Amino acid sequence: MRKQFRDLAAPEEARETIASLELTPDAETVPLAEARGRVLAERIDAGMDVPGFDRASMDGYAVRARDTFGADEADPVELELTGEVHAGTEPDVEVEPGTAVEISTGAVMPPGADAVVIVERTEERDDTLVTYTAVAPGDSVMPAGTDIAAGARALGPGTRITPREIGLLSALGLDEIPVRGKPVVGIISTGDELVRPGDELHSERGEIYDVNSYTIAAGVEEAGGVPKFYPHAGDDYEEMERLLRQAAEECDLVLSSGSTSASAVDVIYRVVEERGDLLLHGVAVKPGKPMLVGTLGEGSAYIGLPGYPVSALTIFRTFVAPAIRDAAGLPEPRTATIEGSMAVRERYAEGRMRLMPVGLVTDGDGETLVYPVDKGSGATTSLVEADGVVEVPPDVEYLAAGESVDVQLFSPDVRPPELLGVGEDDPALSRLLDRVPSPRYLAVGTREGLRRLRDGVPDVAVVAGDMDREIDAVELGSWTREWGLVVPAGNPADVSGLGDLVDSDLRFVNRDTNSGLRTALGNAVADLADERGTTRHELVEAIAGFDRATKAFESPARAVRAGRADVGLGLAATADSLGMGFVSLGVQPVRVLADSSRVKKPSVQLLKRAIKSGSDVIDSLDGYELSGI
Amino acid sequence: MRKQFRDLAAPEEARETIASLELTPDAETVPLAEARGRVLAERIDAGMDVPGFDRASMDGYAVRARDTFGADEADPVELELTGEVHAGTEPDVEVEPGTAVEISTGAVMPPGADAVVIVERTEERDDTLVTYTAVAPGDSVMPAGTDIAAGARALGPGTRITPREIGLLSALGLDEIPVRGKPVVGIISTGDELVRPGDELHSERGEIYDVNSYTIAAGVEEAGGVPKFYPHAGDDYEEMERLLRQAAEECDLVLSSGSTSASAVDVIYRVVEERGDLLLHGVAVKPGKPMLVGTLGEGSAYIGLPGYPVSALTIFRTFVAPAIRDAAGLPEPRTATIEGSMAVRERYAEGRMRLMPVGLVTDGDGETLVYPVDKGSGATTSLVEADGVVEVPPDVEYLAAGESVDVQLFSPDVRPPELLGVGEDDPALSRLLDRVPSPRYLAVGTREGLRRLRDGVPDVAVVAGDMDREIDAVELGSWTREWGLVVPAGNPADVSGLGDLVDSDLRFVNRDTNSGLRTALGNAVADLADERGTTRHELVEAIAGFDRATKAFESPARAVRAGRADVGLGLAATADSLGMGFVSLGVQPVRVLADSSRVKKPSVQLLKRAIKSGSDVIDSLDGYELSGI
Repeated sequence: MRKQFRDLAAPEEARETIASLELTPDAETVPLAEARGRVLAERIDAGMDVPGFDRASMDGYAVRARDTFGADEADPVELELTGEVHAGTEPDVEVEPGTAVEISTGAVMPPGADAVVIVERTEERDDTLVTYTAVAPGDSVMPAGTDIAAGARALGPGTRITPREIGLLSALGLDEIPVRGKPVVGIISTGDELVRPGDELHSERGEIYDVNSYTIAAGVEEAGGVPKFYPHAGDDYEEMERLLRQAAEECDLVLSSGSTSASAVDVIYRVVEERGDLLLHGVAVKPGKPMLVGTLGEGSAYIGLPGYPVSALTIFRTFVAPAIRDAAGLPEPRTATIEGSMAVRERYAEGRMRLMPVGLVTDGDGETLVYPVDKGSGATTSLVEADGVVEVPPDVEYLAAGESVDVQLFSPDVRPPELLGVGEDDPALSRLLDRVPSPRYLAVGTREGLRRLRDGVPDVAVVAGDMDREIDAVELGSWTREWGLVVPAGNPADVSGLGDLVDSDLRFVNRDTNSGLRTALGNAVADLADERGTTRHELVEAIAGFDRATKAFESPARAVRAGRADVGLGLAATADSLGMGFVSLGVQPVRVLADSSRVKKPSVQLLKRAIKSGSDVIDSLDGYELSGI
Repeated sequence: MRKQFRDLAAPEEARETIASLELTPDAETVPLAEARGRVLAERIDAGMDVPGFDRASMDGYAVRARDTFGADEADPVELELTGEVHAGTEPDVEVEPGTAVEISTGAVMPPGADAVVIVERTEERDDTLVTYTAVAPGDSVMPAGTDIAAGARALGPGTRITPREIGLLSALGLDEIPVRGKPVVGIISTGDELVRPGDELHSERGEIYDVNSYTIAAGVEEAGGVPKFYPHAGDDYEEMERLLRQAAEECDLVLSSGSTSASAVDVIYRVVEERGDLLLHGVAVKPGKPMLVGTLGEGSAYIGLPGYPVSALTIFRTFVAPAIRDAAGLPEPRTATIEGSMAVRERYAEGRMRLMPVGLVTDGDGETLVYPVDKGSGATTSLVEADGVVEVPPDVEYLAAGESVDVQLFSPDVRPPELLGVGEDDPALSRLLDRVPSPRYLAVGTREGLRRLRDGVPDVAVVAGDMDREIDAVELGSWTREWGLVVPAGNPADVSGLGDLVDSDLRFVNRDTNSGLRTALGNAVADLADERGTTRHELVEAIAGFDRATKAFESPARAVRAGRADVGLGLAATADSLGMGFVSLGVQPVRVLADSSRVKKPSVQLLKRAIKSGSDVIDSLDGYELSGI
């Protein structure tokens, strides 16, 4: 019987429950060369003096200071030179009264000597040292233990080991360093449809690549843990139960992410309830409502994450990573949060805390703008379109544009993109973006791109086709591209134009209505309707698949190549690169428009330069021409 | 013949020269599981649609949308149930007109179906599905390629791979990722006196542990390079030349740090001049004047760093790490600099740029204060007492107290200590500090500690003995400690008190004049002088070694134990822990005083609590007692 959790736990309760899990592994010893980034498990007191001997700190002569009293330029003192000592050798001579020994920086002070006269204030004559200066005891000598004395506190427990601590540990001669252990985090993959990246994928069976296992594993590493993958149990629930027990033995924490299979969840419940305790099921947070927290008996805990990648990473980052860092003894990274202001108004009223995925962009004044990213359920791409998460408390109904918010970055290594572009997808643009550091491009189509540019979020919008209304923006550059119908190689159906689509049963694949290509096609259909004296609607109805809208520029052509259609809307360049046939319907401009307040942004200027000097890219694409040069 | 460099290069010229070195290694391929933290070497376009099939996005029934037209609660539609499809399996049934197929989230849409009716709006009666709602084509279906379409730009070259990028790469099924290579940096150890940590040290020969090799290696790793150690060539210069040539073959960059041996420098010169070019010798910067930059023939460069650890790390951080990061394709870490204001006035006028090592502390208002750290030449401890470096331009004569400065941290992982204490060294204090997160304690002695507390830099000062003048500070807690003379176990010389030191030839070891122990001893000597009717000076002169001042609390005892002295000034607790004899001369208070404006700092409060509840620590030390509880 499942324990009943009638109410969703408050996020704070979830945090406390997870913080109460015992995840801290035993301390361990690592070689000095591998200690960077680790955390000292105990205080280190110096076991020896550094330096371990009275050390000459200058090149010169070791003397008895008393022998030099009164020496000056006018009245130098002469001492008998009786030997020399170099760094790394044991003195084989004692400094008797009236004598001196040549000494180099770093060498051991010979017995009898208590000071060094620096070489610049002396002269050597045969076996005699002439010193033009008097020295006091201790001059130019670093006594044993001056740097670190035996018994002194050197480093405290909990110290993060960076290069400078490595230096101190080296000085103490330590090559085995006692450090906090790294919590071992087991990652169990559930879901029969998941395939490991690199393995063969059978899409016809509904298989998809396992995104969460590697993503979460990387997050575990980043938080200072050691991820441990467990093999996929498929739908063998006995095997899954065995794996879960094994993971509980071997790990400090076991994670799995949402299963599409109710039976898999049941197995997890059973093991948690049998061997440990189910502490929490369901949290009043969006996403992540079905989060599950429990123990798996002695020294291991279990947390179940949501299944969608953005949700899984969000919940991991918000609730789990802090617990792993804590167990590893690591502080929250200083770069893990960033402040910005909302670029747009965002409404929300679901009565539970929302972890809102957001993207970041810098405006013309260098201020960080924050905008919500929500491709909706299950989209992996929103992972890379979001930089982090804003916690919106349950009682907040909306965030006003301009309101200041804290963004918890998905990783301390995440940086806001330097350029945010939106609009038409285009192969030339994609290549030109390679020449701009750290761009983000959202291929939302021409229409949606223009809308967002008007809203003031992106730096640039890319617009294909003729614009029907003016917009306050600065054109950075433009090119033209030839578009038309992509058909199989050799054009077996002998398509010659749009009319053939209307007059035959050819299966067509279109683009979505935001696309500039789709608009161009619509205009061509309208022209043909005029020509034939019929309506646009009549013609569209006669084209089989006019409503089969796809979101990317190569998708129709690929559907044709795969035999799922006969004709696709596309570019001459796509037909060329995929080795397919092409029927031209026209040429359209592609313009890159910058928000007029962002024109001076370095990345916008770089993009402008990349376009102006981009003839190599443009020339490499069939049917492309750079405009206005 | 050495090339002549008459003038020191400007720091900017040194930066440019180093930036001009060709250190970039070839790109390489790594498994997905090891790709985190790396940098993409090339653009990644999606090679497949994600999802690769039309995917049910809800649990329910796959239908032909047209069949449901008009259905509502009052007038449901009945469809024949002809099968089921689960996630991860290939549909074995087609949805004919008038039929429906049960489908689970994530499953492949069966042929014929174009929408899913969610389970909540249906009822199942025997083999019949009753649907209470109409659906439109595409409802609850995620078409193939919606998430990422084949051919679309996924990630650009130069992208830093964090967990979210791992997610996208996983979704595309990639398990081999093309990344920028890590520059290989050879580290050559010169100096006959250097011993690797872990090996046996012969202090009598003037050997010291090699600090720079491991410190710089850790810095190389942190900057994204791969350090490669070369064995110590000792004073065999042919062997050293061979190693240098080998390193040049195997590495993108070779580093060595200051050699005490002129011959070693000559070997480096010869190899650089023979095989490459000496580009720069000497930079107008303190420290680091003798920096040397050159090439070592095809594809390898050489940089010679100063020898003192703080100087070597400073120059590495300022000039070399940026070049390594650049070669690795990594940006400057966001946490690498921090702003603060000077806690004290600092004068400087040497006509060249100064890289001033500084420590950081947070004041009572949470502002970062910056203070210069200079233990002077060669001290390894200043490595951990400094957090970073402030660049002071050559024309700046002083930095005023309160002036704002930028601190380049020694590592992005360096954090300012949460507590800065100064004053007497004391074993109880050292243990109590273990209970405060991230403390820094500078054992400068009672007198110097009080001076610094008055200057307003530290949070707390620890004072041993009676104070001769009042100070505006808040006492957090105190204890007493028994002090006296530490003698060999069994007290072979039968020392009974201070008089024995005066009356015999016993060799004594003292503490330094900043120490509260030394002050207590001075008072005891004065009392004895009164008693004997003589002067303090007379007695001091009669004690052999009264001027042998050591800086740490255990040092005199250790000198006695090592046979270098007969009697040492020290604590009962030290005699106890080292198993030695002890002659008590008195008990002194140890007080922990907080700057009154810092009392509310969390770390100060934690220290206060640690003292109040520290009876376990105090009780474990011989001759200690907690005060005022």
